[in-house]
Amino acid sequence: MTTVPARLDPVTAYPRVQQFYAAQMRLLDERDIRGYAGTFTEDAEFAHTPGREPARTRDGIVADLTDFHRRFQDDPMQRRHWVNMIDLRLLDDGGFRATAYCLVVKVRPEREPVFVSCVMHDELVERDGVFLTRSRRVSYD
Amino acid sequence: MTTVPARLDPVTAYPRVQQFYAAQMRLLDERDIRGYAGTFTEDAEFAHTPGREPARTRDGIVADLTDFHRRFQDDPMQRRHWVNMIDLRLLDDGGFRATAYCLVVKVRPEREPVFVSCVMHDELVERDGVFLTRSRRVSYD
Amino acid sequence: MTTVPARLDPVTAYPRVQQFYAAQMRLLDERDIRGYAGTFTEDAEFAHTPGREPARTRDGIVADLTDFHRRFQDDPMQRRHWVNMIDLRLLDDGGFRATAYCLVVKVRPEREPVFVSCVMHDELVERDGVFLTRSRRVSYD
Repeated sequence: MTTVPARLDPVTAYPRVQQFYAAQMRLLDERDIRGYAGTFTEDAEFAHTPGREPARTRDGIVADLTDFHRRFQDDPMQRRHWVNMIDLRLLDDGGFRATAYCLVVKVRPEREPVFVSCVMHDELVERDGVFLTRSRRVSYD
Repeated sequence: MTTVPARLDPVTAYPRVQQFYAAQMRLLDERDIRGYAGTFTEDAEFAHTPGREPARTRDGIVADLTDFHRRFQDDPMQRRHWVNMIDLRLLDDGGFRATAYCLVVKVRPEREPVFVSCVMHDELVERDGVFLTRSRRVSYD
Repeated sequence: MTTVPARLDPVTAYPRVQQFYAAQMRLLDERDIRGYAGTFTEDAEFAHTPGREPARTRDGIVADLTDFHRRFQDDPMQRRHWVNMIDLRLLDDGGFRATAYCLVVKVRPEREPVFVSCVMHDELVERDGVFLTRSRRVSYD
């Protein structure tokens, strides 16, 4: 036994982080940009594309993704973000570092799916029993 | 703390649902149709292909999949159903709604794998400590 | 309630096994062969390629993978081992049998990813609170 609260134990947290990613990525894949931004902390930083300035704050993420998604506007593409192989480590400040593989599956009618392989470098925090992304940096293979 | 039994807690249930899907899909991928049907409730409904009448009851699922699998009879294909990004929600009646991404990997000798991306809309219930699928609807990207 | 220690309970162990695979495979994908070998027991057996003699002991795994990886030496390839659909069963001796799907994603610059679908047949044991692979046999689709 230990005196660390259960919610700070990586083992207990692990399935909750998986649930968090499932719900978070579904919002992104359904292009609910505001809902997706709401899964980040108010002061989050999100660097999703190398060479592009990271988005900061929820409003900044909404603005950035709205701009970024314009390229998909006339593209009948369904994206699916698969997150797996989550390496979850407790940080000193009570947050978590999650390093996870992400495979983006892009499906278009009558076409073979296209895949993009990347790694997500996340910091997650718990606020009122809910996980939020405090920072995310995506690197591409 | 809460008075909800541990088995009804989504966090506790999450790894059990993953274990359930792993065992269930392996039965399907090994073409153990009767074994697979046994992972559904006796009165289950299973809609796996748009435009095709859903299968109902375990016997109905066996009959339907036996018929459906005829198309694979002379196809040296190994299917692998990858289920991930499980969004698990507790229902009022004590069951669970699981919405999960499913990537079907079709492997044939000397050929590149072929992928089908879909979403599983499941209702799961626990009977005598074992999860069963009460209903499944598959939508395709 | 049960008198089985929590660490031997498959449900409690499940997320820990996922964490183990995430960390283990990242070592392999980063070509940290010695680190990867350290996730096996000292007397482990590892059969990763049909027709090739299994590697035995940590030093044997290091030697075998160092030899095996020579073929990748001039190949600008990033591998990602995706492990999922883990069917985890408690063995009589307190270890676990884990049968899991593994999709190896091979990414090369300016090329579409290449996929290899296989199944991992593992035996895992816990030593001092840490999981280790006691044996691994990989079969290919």
